[in-house]
Amino acid sequence: MKYPKGSRQNKHNSQTNYTNYSQLGGTQFGNRGMTLEKELNETNKFYLETDQAVIHKKPTPIQVVQVDYPKRSAAVIKEAYYQQPSTTDYNGIYNGRYIDFEAKQTKNKTSLPFSNIHQHQVDHMRKIDDHGGICFFIIRFKLLNETFLLPIRPFIKVWDQQFEGNRKSLPYHYIKENGYLIPFTLQKKVDYLTVVDRVYFNGGDHNERRH
Amino acid sequence: MKYPKGSRQNKHNSQTNYTNYSQLGGTQFGNRGMTLEKELNETNKFYLETDQAVIHKKPTPIQVVQVDYPKRSAAVIKEAYYQQPSTTDYNGIYNGRYIDFEAKQTKNKTSLPFSNIHQHQVDHMRKIDDHGGICFFIIRFKLLNETFLLPIRPFIKVWDQQFEGNRKSLPYHYIKENGYLIPFTLQKKVDYLTVVDRVYFNGGDHNERRH
Repeated sequence: MKYPKGSRQNKHNSQTNYTNYSQLGGTQFGNRGMTLEKELNETNKFYLETDQAVIHKKPTPIQVVQVDYPKRSAAVIKEAYYQQPSTTDYNGIYNGRYIDFEAKQTKNKTSLPFSNIHQHQVDHMRKIDDHGGICFFIIRFKLLNETFLLPIRPFIKVWDQQFEGNRKSLPYHYIKENGYLIPFTLQKKVDYLTVVDRVYFNGGDHNERRH
Repeated sequence: MKYPKGSRQNKHNSQTNYTNYSQLGGTQFGNRGMTLEKELNETNKFYLETDQAVIHKKPTPIQVVQVDYPKRSAAVIKEAYYQQPSTTDYNGIYNGRYIDFEAKQTKNKTSLPFSNIHQHQVDHMRKIDDHGGICFFIIRFKLLNETFLLPIRPFIKVWDQQFEGNRKSLPYHYIKENGYLIPFTLQKKVDYLTVVDRVYFNGGDHNERRH
């Protein structure tokens, strides 16, 4: 599967360099101009270095079509295409538990459109939940400067409604009611493990334990 | 980091297609000509479809340098390089536990050379073990038609010896003594979960529980 022009441009930029902060706006606070992906990578690095968790972003899948092998130097990929990921972007281990999540951001102020989320990703997350893993979305409303952790179960409730024809996005108010605001600190720009502690380890989550 | 010419050629082929069976030799049994990677992917697919586990191979990390965006068609990557993976190739969840492993094969009959294993991969695996994950190598001796599961702890004992200057490989007899032969079936070509059951879930493993 190949991505249409444009839809992958940000992904490409964010994978190869991080010089595109300014285009994202919201630079009232220096850090807020950074992409969610970069902030998550920094946070995960901090978790790793302080031995709190081992969580990595998976590489973007790329289908390689043509490679040159010049003498005495590295193989050069000459033709390749971005592929659609079949799982989520992030996984790892925390407190002895398997953890798996997908991160999405939107400039929309009232909802997260479903258009950037793929059915097979949701299928994967449902399976992770079934197998006892910790599974959630990290959702950033860029213009509101708010980032939420939304467990997979309340997400799926709304996701499944789209097939009855009455949903094309996840409303902000639903995310706010069923999710948890993720705190920001200088060292942990998206300190989602603080929320994971509360939701999945201290018994406080009706969403996780409802089923 | 870029790979030298040659060392990635197999990796490239195995990622883009599976037409290179014959070059691997050992085709006395049809399946034995398949690469270890393909057999693991098939096995993981079977585990997934029968809802036994959710374990995926991570995409090979690729550094993208130049991309074309032709009108009305998919973005084409025009220049890119293979990067060295910073973690292992496979991870996921089984029986509610985080599972993480690296697969290596060799044509050598007496040992697995350390040359294809990177320090940061071993560091990653050590951390996974520390955090309570299930972590091991799958090692195939192609010419012997034997595939072993070797838990990370006995691996590290020998790995660390190389820094005292007296180890450059993992001896076959050591792998045989400290590892577990992985059975082959038609549906599960590398049925490592059978071994995982025995080693990590039924209390039978002195290697896992020694420390």
